[in-house]
Amino acid sequence: MMTRGLLITVSGASGTGKGTVCKRLLDLTPTLIYSISATTRAPREGELDGREYFFFSRDQFVEKINRNEFLEYADVYGNYYGTLRSYVDGQLADGRDVLLEIDTQGALKVQKACPEGVFIFLLPPSLEELKQRIMGRGTESPESLAKRLKSAPLEIEIGRQYDYVVVNDSVERAVDQIKSIIAAEHCRVDRSAGLFDTFKS
Amino acid sequence: MMTRGLLITVSGASGTGKGTVCKRLLDLTPTLIYSISATTRAPREGELDGREYFFFSRDQFVEKINRNEFLEYADVYGNYYGTLRSYVDGQLADGRDVLLEIDTQGALKVQKACPEGVFIFLLPPSLEELKQRIMGRGTESPESLAKRLKSAPLEIEIGRQYDYVVVNDSVERAVDQIKSIIAAEHCRVDRSAGLFDTFKS
Repeated sequence: MMTRGLLITVSGASGTGKGTVCKRLLDLTPTLIYSISATTRAPREGELDGREYFFFSRDQFVEKINRNEFLEYADVYGNYYGTLRSYVDGQLADGRDVLLEIDTQGALKVQKACPEGVFIFLLPPSLEELKQRIMGRGTESPESLAKRLKSAPLEIEIGRQYDYVVVNDSVERAVDQIKSIIAAEHCRVDRSAGLFDTFKS
Repeated sequence: MMTRGLLITVSGASGTGKGTVCKRLLDLTPTLIYSISATTRAPREGELDGREYFFFSRDQFVEKINRNEFLEYADVYGNYYGTLRSYVDGQLADGRDVLLEIDTQGALKVQKACPEGVFIFLLPPSLEELKQRIMGRGTESPESLAKRLKSAPLEIEIGRQYDYVVVNDSVERAVDQIKSIIAAEHCRVDRSAGLFDTFKS
């Protein structure tokens, strides 16, 4: 019996460690597909259309926006980035679980477009730890750092609108919990009507 | 931060293998407490009040029924069996997860009394396999076997009212899935308000 895959969204405040957790999760879960974004930025050396990104011209992208072809999109420093509905739908229809690593604003848009998705919010162990992590990157100006830290508590409040919360105090533990969430969601009765149908007398 | 434990109910049609799965789950999960039932049947040699069962006289039990002290109870061949609300509540308040292995009718009563519980329905791999398992017990008369098999599809339909469904095609796999469900439920945002409160600015 072919069952539809799950759209797994992992999100969280900037600096929480989404990228590291998602990379490890993908390494340990060969059946999980990383969602490829669409973008208007130019391909870099070695990047392939349909592998790193789906590359579009600005006109093409805007046309797709107008046709409501994105689950979410955003303008990031003058380039568009987005998640194509058709791409995600195709994977899910083929029974594959799709992982979407995305910021908090994007996740809320996806939740609206795809409420049957699974929305996981990653928390830092503490605000102090978040500060250390952002500072540890060494890429922030003092102004940018101050701005990030000020907005962090508000960004974390957004997590209350998700389905699950996972504390990233250890990458392995966070990945284990996300794996459990995916396994559990596959067992949800409201996703298993077909299973019960096979027992009908 | 002390968080409330989860009431985990494992149920399913007669012959699905609830007992074996729950025993293995408890062996592998030392933090999980098996719910001790109350009964009016007499203690057997070696049984201790509060260990195997809470033993009550018929009068005591009926008084507790009238005071609404049971999450569920049933009369089984002239003896009462039930689950004491105060016992379960005490364990949950102390942060312990409680496992309730119970028939489908009992589970529906518990669901009404305790909707925040986690309700897991165990399915046999097939009706044919269920038949083999019940016959394998060798304890059924032909009439009783016929009755059980006739009622099985209807009993399985009850599972659609649960939260999760797990196919017991292998005890280890079923136990793994239940462990994932418990881990995932602990991550649910609607059980984690206190976690978010610690990040309030």
